[in-house]
Amino acid sequence: MSAISARLDALEASATDTDSEPGPSDAPTDPNPFVFNTLLFLMGGFLVMFMAAGFAMLEAGLVRSKNAAMQCLKNIALYSIAGIMFWLLGYNLMYENVNVADNIAQLSGYLGTFSMKEIPAPSADSGDYAAASDWFFQMVFCATTASIVSGTVAERMRLWPFLIFVVFLTGILYPITGSWEWGAGWLDQMGFSDFAGSTLVHSVGGWAALAGAIVVGARAGKFGSNGVIHPMPGSSIPLATLGTFILWLGWFGFNGGSQLALGTIEDASAVAKIFVNTNTAAASGVVVCIILTQLLYRKVDVTMALNGALAGLVSITAEPLTPTMAQAAMIGGIGGVLVVVFVPLLDKLRIDDVVGAIPVHLVAGIWGTMIVPLTNTDASYYVQFVGVAAIGGLAFFSSLVVWLILAGVTGLRATPEEEAAGLDQSEVGVLAYPEFGTGRM
Amino acid sequence: MSAISARLDALEASATDTDSEPGPSDAPTDPNPFVFNTLLFLMGGFLVMFMAAGFAMLEAGLVRSKNAAMQCLKNIALYSIAGIMFWLLGYNLMYENVNVADNIAQLSGYLGTFSMKEIPAPSADSGDYAAASDWFFQMVFCATTASIVSGTVAERMRLWPFLIFVVFLTGILYPITGSWEWGAGWLDQMGFSDFAGSTLVHSVGGWAALAGAIVVGARAGKFGSNGVIHPMPGSSIPLATLGTFILWLGWFGFNGGSQLALGTIEDASAVAKIFVNTNTAAASGVVVCIILTQLLYRKVDVTMALNGALAGLVSITAEPLTPTMAQAAMIGGIGGVLVVVFVPLLDKLRIDDVVGAIPVHLVAGIWGTMIVPLTNTDASYYVQFVGVAAIGGLAFFSSLVVWLILAGVTGLRATPEEEAAGLDQSEVGVLAYPEFGTGRM
Amino acid sequence: MSAISARLDALEASATDTDSEPGPSDAPTDPNPFVFNTLLFLMGGFLVMFMAAGFAMLEAGLVRSKNAAMQCLKNIALYSIAGIMFWLLGYNLMYENVNVADNIAQLSGYLGTFSMKEIPAPSADSGDYAAASDWFFQMVFCATTASIVSGTVAERMRLWPFLIFVVFLTGILYPITGSWEWGAGWLDQMGFSDFAGSTLVHSVGGWAALAGAIVVGARAGKFGSNGVIHPMPGSSIPLATLGTFILWLGWFGFNGGSQLALGTIEDASAVAKIFVNTNTAAASGVVVCIILTQLLYRKVDVTMALNGALAGLVSITAEPLTPTMAQAAMIGGIGGVLVVVFVPLLDKLRIDDVVGAIPVHLVAGIWGTMIVPLTNTDASYYVQFVGVAAIGGLAFFSSLVVWLILAGVTGLRATPEEEAAGLDQSEVGVLAYPEFGTGRM
Repeated sequence: MSAISARLDALEASATDTDSEPGPSDAPTDPNPFVFNTLLFLMGGFLVMFMAAGFAMLEAGLVRSKNAAMQCLKNIALYSIAGIMFWLLGYNLMYENVNVADNIAQLSGYLGTFSMKEIPAPSADSGDYAAASDWFFQMVFCATTASIVSGTVAERMRLWPFLIFVVFLTGILYPITGSWEWGAGWLDQMGFSDFAGSTLVHSVGGWAALAGAIVVGARAGKFGSNGVIHPMPGSSIPLATLGTFILWLGWFGFNGGSQLALGTIEDASAVAKIFVNTNTAAASGVVVCIILTQLLYRKVDVTMALNGALAGLVSITAEPLTPTMAQAAMIGGIGGVLVVVFVPLLDKLRIDDVVGAIPVHLVAGIWGTMIVPLTNTDASYYVQFVGVAAIGGLAFFSSLVVWLILAGVTGLRATPEEEAAGLDQSEVGVLAYPEFGTGRM
Repeated sequence: MSAISARLDALEASATDTDSEPGPSDAPTDPNPFVFNTLLFLMGGFLVMFMAAGFAMLEAGLVRSKNAAMQCLKNIALYSIAGIMFWLLGYNLMYENVNVADNIAQLSGYLGTFSMKEIPAPSADSGDYAAASDWFFQMVFCATTASIVSGTVAERMRLWPFLIFVVFLTGILYPITGSWEWGAGWLDQMGFSDFAGSTLVHSVGGWAALAGAIVVGARAGKFGSNGVIHPMPGSSIPLATLGTFILWLGWFGFNGGSQLALGTIEDASAVAKIFVNTNTAAASGVVVCIILTQLLYRKVDVTMALNGALAGLVSITAEPLTPTMAQAAMIGGIGGVLVVVFVPLLDKLRIDDVVGAIPVHLVAGIWGTMIVPLTNTDASYYVQFVGVAAIGGLAFFSSLVVWLILAGVTGLRATPEEEAAGLDQSEVGVLAYPEFGTGRM
Repeated sequence: MSAISARLDALEASATDTDSEPGPSDAPTDPNPFVFNTLLFLMGGFLVMFMAAGFAMLEAGLVRSKNAAMQCLKNIALYSIAGIMFWLLGYNLMYENVNVADNIAQLSGYLGTFSMKEIPAPSADSGDYAAASDWFFQMVFCATTASIVSGTVAERMRLWPFLIFVVFLTGILYPITGSWEWGAGWLDQMGFSDFAGSTLVHSVGGWAALAGAIVVGARAGKFGSNGVIHPMPGSSIPLATLGTFILWLGWFGFNGGSQLALGTIEDASAVAKIFVNTNTAAASGVVVCIILTQLLYRKVDVTMALNGALAGLVSITAEPLTPTMAQAAMIGGIGGVLVVVFVPLLDKLRIDDVVGAIPVHLVAGIWGTMIVPLTNTDASYYVQFVGVAAIGGLAFFSSLVVWLILAGVTGLRATPEEEAAGLDQSEVGVLAYPEFGTGRM
């Protein structure tokens, strides 16, 4: 609009005052794209920030009540640690001079100096969006990665080794694998495509969770002899449901915000299409899980339905823009199938994933990443595989090493007595529900 | 706008360069109104989407704990089914060639072919907003209608017949009644006025719920002989309160987004006024219910206060723009009165509405629709009545038929043993709170 | 748009018809800043509105279950009362002709006539943003102030005197102290600086809570002889955690919206920087509380971590824009220290603050206000002290008087029997969790 006004002013000047000197060009820069883009990051950012509450409720609801306060504490702590570490280390590792050598050089440098580049003052901000809004949006993605780990290793891992792992994950691992793609690093240059992070966020979190589950071992009594699996039902389905809905809500920010721009018709339209595909994939994941569990178990397992929504969301996250709605429904629906298949499969492998984060975030994350070329002709199956394998390799093995170091140095696992009493008592000192039942099961 | 640009091009050409060749018109269209309108739909849409969580928490809190997981499952399932059905059938039924004959012809056609019009690619999007953003906004309204039904029939209706009813409601009934008004159909042409859906959403949901409550019957033990009413208190007032606050939050998107445009000063100002009136009506509903229940019962019934907020919100939904704040307070306050009057009245009629959805959504929805002409001079009481009656008639009787068919074909009702044990056990296979109390009451 | 057309008409006339008279200048106003600013108020407003749910959950989780329904009722009631009183009295007291004499004159006038200035019709709206959006944003701040009081006086104060106090707080006290600064009153003219309300909102609420806690006295059994303090653990850590996350989310609206404008690059950038600093201060508060409670108590107290987040948020609220991220981390971290110090200190003073609102909102609010001059060179320590003292003085002593009057006239306190049974039973008539445990502890 200001462009039109400027043109009108110029025309009126030339039309009415033939003596006027041509002044210096002071046509203002159109601020609107900057504001729209910044707004998208802020709105997307606060929606993703709220996913921290979603994970907290999902996990508090899916653990037994004797460990629910611990999950609450872990989730608010990990979100906070991510906010500090992404400032001290992560953001710079991820977005400056990113290749593997750079990563190592930077890491050494920053670990020594913590030379965090300060966010510019508003009066000095330039570019297509506010630098701070980008920082905020990227930080909440980093925090989400840590949230994924929290649930898998619940009910038997001690607090402080978990928090130290979060320092590693949010300050070093996530930024490095992230830099390979979103920092314009080698995978990006190869043509790897991961729109909003099926691999960069969800699989990385899932690989870290898997490594942790392997190192810390299963909960006492979970896997009996003769292959008997002892169910340990979650303490509050309503809280788990609330958490899932909050995550679903947050995902509109997660995927929609990853368009990274809002100020043009095409960008706004793309964000809208991403909302629709994101919702359709999640809805399809739920419907598939409801039908499958009814067929398989003669009852509809509500926790499977919840995880079906999340698996649908993770599946569409690598490419929420190019699919048609039918393709989005297919992609999310297969995500739901993967949950129904992999939850019991992990049990058979005696890997104890308390909340189902590995099927939801790791397996569906791989699926979503590998299916990108179906709808996005810029992607290739080979490069997608390279990205999944490279990021998965670094994420899994570096996590494994850190978990093993922690196991050796601090110990990862609560004592059998502490585990039986619940970690709320031994680690938090406050029970989640001191008045309801015994707090033990 | 392009006309203006063309005129500007012509003027500039003639004013500044008499020798210039007229080039191809490449003046950019002002993207800002498109982006603002799309943003309003997306923001309104995610707020209304979150109302699904609000209904889930409200209902999980107001049922007994033995049925709370079932309500959670129903709510995530119905939101998902709505997302799928509105894609397969609903959106096209509601917004293309809408009259009754068209409805029938389309329904036959779509049921045969599922010829869902695909959302255009972002690069091809045109109009005043992104097509996908409109789809998303309309879809969450459709889902809300189904949410209303879920609570009324709780604690005794089986899962699958309910889900099949949701398929009918979200795929066929809501889109057809919706098409009469928001699809520019006959009621719209007559001058019916329902800004954000007191009738199209809330009454339709309420009528469907009433029909379901009549067909499925009351919960075992609810109504004793001699008119004795057995109270069955909800299991978690905090969750019900949370649900109410989430719904209140979502209503800003519900009513504010229904302005359908944000890009002009007048539109932005209208959205703001809608926010204020929406909040004032809800606040008034709460205050009225608090005072009335104190006077009537000597204690303040918190569930009445919660329903008072919702009734205030439903009441203002038919016209949140034209009332003054005093009128909004009056409209919402009378909504609160209706709750206090109709909750016990339904009990006297032995209609068992577990969460009070009929007083809140149906009665206050009718009230809100009928009072529109007080503040909106474009509306008439006669036409409002015609709309309420026509939509109510189709919604109630078609729902009644579908419920009766389901009762005959699949059976609607859990067995007395299942109902006594709670539907979580018989239908879901997972208890909402396995560690707290007995799960039975 | 018609203005553009008119100018085009005039230009075309002058270009083609040299005899035309120059018409009056009717340059079109650019609507985008108006829309952006309005949007910021509405988005900030709905986020702050949702903080009412956050307080409800925090408080419901931190009281014993026998008083949880009462806290839910108080929170939805106080939010509603604030919405009504800020309309009837508050907004005009706060934003028109604001000095102490005006305050008194207005108060007399409005109490007599309730001459609420109506919000202008959208077609008549002018200024830099929609008047209604400003009203909404200011109203939710007023409601937040009342929310702060609710938790401190929980578990022993009766409902109606509390609600009457809320009428006073939201209709009179908050608007008057608010007018001194945000109404461009004497503190503003002196140069007092309180960006988003560390003092105007949080300390005012905290002072009112402190006065209430002193007048109503401690809960029965809280403070034994010999200085023994009897812990009364909250009934649901997950709900308290959820409430904290919701408050954290809402704070982005609280602080970000207080930039009051979004339509320029500098404003958008400022809002973004505010988001980052707000998050960093909160994260730092959490991390500090976790480390300190581990060191002091050998366990990490999750309720301290939650209050650490809130104290960090309150601390940065007086100036979220000018600090660097390192300064924000320092400001928020010291907020966390204050919680760890003042929670036990209040116990030693035998002031019974059920949820820790006084350390979080009052103490951290003073801290945040006093540290503003460190980063904002427009502020002075002296003037900050004057503002803290003047507002604190009026807030504390006027609250004290009102609490004492209420104690004399209506009685503040439940009987010992009612307190032992829980206020849900005596005041609400509905138990929060009728099926879990005994509801007594």
